[in-house]
Amino acid sequence: MQDELIRRISMLVAKELNSQEKTESENKVPIGISARHVHLCREHIDILFGKGYQLTEKKELMGGQYAAQECVTLVGTKLRAIESVRILGPERKASQVEVSKTDAIRLGINPPVRESGNTAGSAPIAIVGPKGAVYLDEGCIVAKRHIHMSPADAENFGVTDGQIVSVKFDNSRGGTFEGVQIRVDKTFTLEMHIDTDEANGLGVGKDMGIVIK
Amino acid sequence: MQDELIRRISMLVAKELNSQEKTESENKVPIGISARHVHLCREHIDILFGKGYQLTEKKELMGGQYAAQECVTLVGTKLRAIESVRILGPERKASQVEVSKTDAIRLGINPPVRESGNTAGSAPIAIVGPKGAVYLDEGCIVAKRHIHMSPADAENFGVTDGQIVSVKFDNSRGGTFEGVQIRVDKTFTLEMHIDTDEANGLGVGKDMGIVIK
Repeated sequence: MQDELIRRISMLVAKELNSQEKTESENKVPIGISARHVHLCREHIDILFGKGYQLTEKKELMGGQYAAQECVTLVGTKLRAIESVRILGPERKASQVEVSKTDAIRLGINPPVRESGNTAGSAPIAIVGPKGAVYLDEGCIVAKRHIHMSPADAENFGVTDGQIVSVKFDNSRGGTFEGVQIRVDKTFTLEMHIDTDEANGLGVGKDMGIVIK
Repeated sequence: MQDELIRRISMLVAKELNSQEKTESENKVPIGISARHVHLCREHIDILFGKGYQLTEKKELMGGQYAAQECVTLVGTKLRAIESVRILGPERKASQVEVSKTDAIRLGINPPVRESGNTAGSAPIAIVGPKGAVYLDEGCIVAKRHIHMSPADAENFGVTDGQIVSVKFDNSRGGTFEGVQIRVDKTFTLEMHIDTDEANGLGVGKDMGIVIK
């Protein structure tokens, strides 16, 4: 028992010493709140909007992505719908639908919490556009929270691609998200992505998160 | 700097030693997830359902409360509506509407995060029933998370009424809620109340929370 206690105290001391290496401001990350959205492959754009249709950019996002003018309607397996769901461009190799758990309950589906692109065995969903509809046997997920950053940001934070950190919010409805994945790429701008449930649950608006290793 | 470091390490050691006083199971609290709901005063029941109308109990809740059979429709100041919102009985001295932040965005209103009963200056909202409608100039809040417990529970946890604690979830979407208020009353059953955004944001279902003082 005494050994275990000493081990735990030593860990806390080491963690505290480590955290002193950076000032608080150096550990802050801006937050991007992702509302429900859809990524589409070429084949599905053809079906939903017409052969050869090109998505129209409405607002530029980071890493060459953009919010498109175009929206679709999602229909879950219990035939419940959510209208006016934004498409994010450009087109991808595979279509993917990202919803919050609140959306999922409304739709009557049970999507897993996953990293973008990891859709094997995820929830089925129907996507309806002005020219057609597609039924994804899998492809609907709740996005797993993560932090995008450049290699220079990663060096500043002292973290590496794939590392798991916690992010704390010191606001009035505050708290800490654990299991936050670091994603490093030279096209990325520093931003933590959370969904609307996560933002609303901790009352996060324009707050900065504090990264805790 | 060295003094500050020693002070912080001492605090962490003291906190760690203190946390060892209880085993983990003794610090666990079951979770109740509150969906949007309405409490009504006698006058408003008369208007919404007819003079002298009595609410029908559908499901018993703790502390003499119950979910009623009856529902209402909420309409926000931008005329957007949410249908089939459950009434919780029995009647109260003042009507109060509790929604999640996600609901609030859907309704186009901006209710504050408040303790139940503290509705001064909170958001306006319309409540529509089968026999009439009432417009609350204030009364719509997002409920502030809290833990109900009996005096015996409070003694077990080593906390007092009004104390603020944190509650941690060790699930796959885990994290920690800070600023959780303890409420002690002899009619209360041990349960932490969070709303649907909070539950969904941290992936809380039937998990137990771990109280951290």
